[in-house]
Amino acid sequence: MRVREFRAADWPAVWAIVRDVVRAQETFVYDPEMSEDDARAVWIERPPGLTVVATEGDRVVGTAKMGPNRSGPGSHVSTASFMVAADARGRGAGTALCRFAIDWARAGGYAGMQFNAVAESNRPAVELYQRLGFRILGTVPRAFAHPALGRVGLHLMYLEF
Amino acid sequence: MRVREFRAADWPAVWAIVRDVVRAQETFVYDPEMSEDDARAVWIERPPGLTVVATEGDRVVGTAKMGPNRSGPGSHVSTASFMVAADARGRGAGTALCRFAIDWARAGGYAGMQFNAVAESNRPAVELYQRLGFRILGTVPRAFAHPALGRVGLHLMYLEF
Repeated sequence: MRVREFRAADWPAVWAIVRDVVRAQETFVYDPEMSEDDARAVWIERPPGLTVVATEGDRVVGTAKMGPNRSGPGSHVSTASFMVAADARGRGAGTALCRFAIDWARAGGYAGMQFNAVAESNRPAVELYQRLGFRILGTVPRAFAHPALGRVGLHLMYLEF
Repeated sequence: MRVREFRAADWPAVWAIVRDVVRAQETFVYDPEMSEDDARAVWIERPPGLTVVATEGDRVVGTAKMGPNRSGPGSHVSTASFMVAADARGRGAGTALCRFAIDWARAGGYAGMQFNAVAESNRPAVELYQRLGFRILGTVPRAFAHPALGRVGLHLMYLEF
């Protein structure tokens, strides 16, 4: 598993991952009808943010974006988002992407990394973030409408550097 | 104090409030260099959101925007933001705007209202929200760079309807 900066030629593979993850409505608070152009605008970061991909051989199996969580007086805290292709999960892409994002944000002088809305039903993600040092600072009850589980909580997670 | 829907003719007064609040950098995680066009794009909501003003006589003394906090599986929770002109504070505009937003969101069928980033140093706002039933669900430590106080926490606040 390698992680490298996104290139324009990666877009078809990245869009396929984003489209499938967003349509599943199981993890992201994005509009499931999001168009390809909307997805590009949301997912492909410009400086000071960054978008990367995880690759197995030549195949793009996951992607992450990272940057400041808020503007102005909140811009010293970073955030990041991660997506892995359904048929590539459980092989370390999420961990590699998250480690990359943390290293990138530390190196960039951010004070910490915040995840604003982690569905509590997304146990693999919650446990991965906890293994890497994130803590749950709070949970908004019933704030995520999971298609199978109904309304579950959304965690605010944070790692202070 | 009255609260009514924003009209195009209100913009100069609303922009003056937004500009001053954002430049002060004491309460909002917005870019302090935000242009007038950026401010309009951020502050003037389209349906399903709404932007309103608080008036004293003919004068616009405050403004609020409200709408879904997130998209897709998170769109049943609302959010809102409030700004009051510096020389009109302490006369109930914030309370009137917040009550209006809560009533609007309840009537619209939202499950609750979430404030994502309330600077803990903004005691009047924190106390106002608590009086209206909001709870602090978590606080991101040192996530807000206050110009005089240094880095203070950002509260996640929530009112479930």
